[in-house]
Amino acid sequence: MTAPLPLRVDRAALQADVEALSLLTDPDRPWTRRSFTPRFLEGRAWLHDRFEQAGLVVRIDAAGNLIGRWQAEDIAAAVVMTGSHCDTVPGGGRFDGIAGVLAGLAAIRAMKTAGHSPRHSIELVDFLAEEPSDWGLSCVGSRGMAGALSDTDLALVGPGGEVLAHAIDRIGGAVADLATAQRDDICAFVELHIEQGPVLETEGRDVAIVTAIAGIARVRVRFTGIAAHAGTSPMIMRSDAGLALARFALALRDAARTQAGNSHFTATIGVQHLEPGGANVVPGAAEAIVDLRAADTGAMDDFLNALPDLARAAAKAENCSAETTAISNAPPVTCAAGLCDLIAKAAHTVDARAIRLVSGAGHDAAYIARIAPAAMIFVPSRGGRSHCPEEWTDPEALALGADVLLNALLLRDRAMPGPGRAPSKGNHP
Amino acid sequence: MTAPLPLRVDRAALQADVEALSLLTDPDRPWTRRSFTPRFLEGRAWLHDRFEQAGLVVRIDAAGNLIGRWQAEDIAAAVVMTGSHCDTVPGGGRFDGIAGVLAGLAAIRAMKTAGHSPRHSIELVDFLAEEPSDWGLSCVGSRGMAGALSDTDLALVGPGGEVLAHAIDRIGGAVADLATAQRDDICAFVELHIEQGPVLETEGRDVAIVTAIAGIARVRVRFTGIAAHAGTSPMIMRSDAGLALARFALALRDAARTQAGNSHFTATIGVQHLEPGGANVVPGAAEAIVDLRAADTGAMDDFLNALPDLARAAAKAENCSAETTAISNAPPVTCAAGLCDLIAKAAHTVDARAIRLVSGAGHDAAYIARIAPAAMIFVPSRGGRSHCPEEWTDPEALALGADVLLNALLLRDRAMPGPGRAPSKGNHP
Repeated sequence: MTAPLPLRVDRAALQADVEALSLLTDPDRPWTRRSFTPRFLEGRAWLHDRFEQAGLVVRIDAAGNLIGRWQAEDIAAAVVMTGSHCDTVPGGGRFDGIAGVLAGLAAIRAMKTAGHSPRHSIELVDFLAEEPSDWGLSCVGSRGMAGALSDTDLALVGPGGEVLAHAIDRIGGAVADLATAQRDDICAFVELHIEQGPVLETEGRDVAIVTAIAGIARVRVRFTGIAAHAGTSPMIMRSDAGLALARFALALRDAARTQAGNSHFTATIGVQHLEPGGANVVPGAAEAIVDLRAADTGAMDDFLNALPDLARAAAKAENCSAETTAISNAPPVTCAAGLCDLIAKAAHTVDARAIRLVSGAGHDAAYIARIAPAAMIFVPSRGGRSHCPEEWTDPEALALGADVLLNALLLRDRAMPGPGRAPSKGNHP
Repeated sequence: MTAPLPLRVDRAALQADVEALSLLTDPDRPWTRRSFTPRFLEGRAWLHDRFEQAGLVVRIDAAGNLIGRWQAEDIAAAVVMTGSHCDTVPGGGRFDGIAGVLAGLAAIRAMKTAGHSPRHSIELVDFLAEEPSDWGLSCVGSRGMAGALSDTDLALVGPGGEVLAHAIDRIGGAVADLATAQRDDICAFVELHIEQGPVLETEGRDVAIVTAIAGIARVRVRFTGIAAHAGTSPMIMRSDAGLALARFALALRDAARTQAGNSHFTATIGVQHLEPGGANVVPGAAEAIVDLRAADTGAMDDFLNALPDLARAAAKAENCSAETTAISNAPPVTCAAGLCDLIAKAAHTVDARAIRLVSGAGHDAAYIARIAPAAMIFVPSRGGRSHCPEEWTDPEALALGADVLLNALLLRDRAMPGPGRAPSKGNHP
């Protein structure tokens, strides 16, 4: 049977799950469950049991993803997938990652309780190592599922000299069979995640429908001046690279604000240093990493093209020179429009006030979007805080988000089941 | 007899001395001769021999200063002193410090060659550890001679857990008798040093007559904003502490430039950091050390009083807060006007183009000024570079500076010899 809409998740059970899994933390730095560590395996074992208790058939794929499957009667039907990740940054929060895994679990339990019989096989995934792991790579599991885990990635060396390939095998993956992790049978992927930003709270909304996941570019900017004695170098004879960087930081922000008036755009300097770095030395060099996020490839390209001039102008005003070096540039991902509309409908059925938003953060969904129609649901983060112990999402707000996920999955399941298919890259419906 | 002016130093001998002593360097990081190290003792042994070869009676005082004395006939006559230091910063230059010791030696040799018979006893000093030593203290020897080496200073712990008092004893001092190092018999102290700045070169002058040694204040400024995810925090909702610091750095420079229009003044940020320091995190805090130098106590006090408002204004413009904490504040030292005039006269006799300048850097002379009339002569630094391997002073420029020192010492020696006296603090003739 197909359950009637709307269904609701069991709030108490969801809250208890969040409580239990988040408490599996390194005790000296809550809330920490780093991928590939014994603590992570503890979390995984707990999830494995919970998945099984919900009636799912549990396995770990070759890329190290923990997958619980609810088999449809039609063995050839494509898969409707949900999930997120259970690993954390060091000293992170209690929601980033697990909110999506546990909301997916709550949704499946609600469907089962309602006696729903799915047309599609439904899969719940705990993706391996979404956060930048100790190997320096993020989204290890979703890359693997999308066929985007390269030999270079697998050869990365982590703690104790262990290569990533070995670490994946160690936690239950099978890198020798990595191709078996790559999927072409997913017809929809919906990930619930905390917003990690202040927009939902500021705008007084319950959920965000993520229309795109921003592209991320990183650029190193280096200013070169002339190091000099702080006491003997007159103010008007200096080439202070630190001041060139200060000018640049402010100009960068102004340019990013202008750009953000058109579409989602951010520019951030979170890392910088002065050389030689003595209190009594005028800086001879200053370096910063610029983090750029854009929903739109054109906007990113335009900004990247303008960046060297922005740096040179700041440098020139301080008798310095500037050099910019591209570090990385991952293109934005557009979420599947059809799925976004389904989520909007689902939100309406449970009276959740929704807005459409671009995700400035990267997510597993960005990789799954390469092989399937993908979309995301955000729930509010108090004060916009994330990746810190203060990270918090109200239990009822999370449950309402899980309701939206549940009903979106139901709506998608109602649609005609078709065989699994791999959409062409970057051109999702 | 009193030698007729002007005398000239032996250029070849001075250049050979600079060459020989500077080559006593740690081979892997020229030019390095850190105080208290075996390399330093090598330099000292070399100086000891050279001092003796020049006919001086050599001793190490209780504070660890190497002193060569040319005894006047009148045993009660006050001392005319010159000297500087032979220790270096790590990876420093070939002139900072030794230029003054070797110019003093060249001056004494020239007087002896000319058959000069001094009215005053003349002393040549290699002060111990002028550069910040591995114990974190600078001007160890001149502090000792001025009676300004405290028990706290002597208890500082350096490499291998050795306290400073023990290190001073180890290189030949006698901390138990430290009071014997304190002097009240000096009627004039003149130190030659490299400028370590660009003014002489820029202005096309040969020597500077240092009228004051700037006071140095250090202030910690901390900006607090709100750390946030670089991707999910919209540009207009941020409290970016890094941008508050950038604004402050530029405002600080503008304020210092205005102040420098009245008298020597510098403000420098050579050390700063962002927290938490991740490329993908909007900085929640930013900290900088502000280094301020002023020839004038009033100007320094005014600036220090205005600093918190300057920081708060920058913070407020970025939705952040600011906190300023005083670290240190050493008052400026006025050089003895009479000695400055003598130096000007000496420069005139040897056709050296002189200007009057405030020293932005600290020197041993600042401590000796507490117990005697003191003044300094600067010689040019190529490109204003110092504390780096590129530090350079043209041999003839150094020799001309040594000529000025030589004739200034002669002029001072001609003046009536009187008994040693300790001038009242901060009120030198």
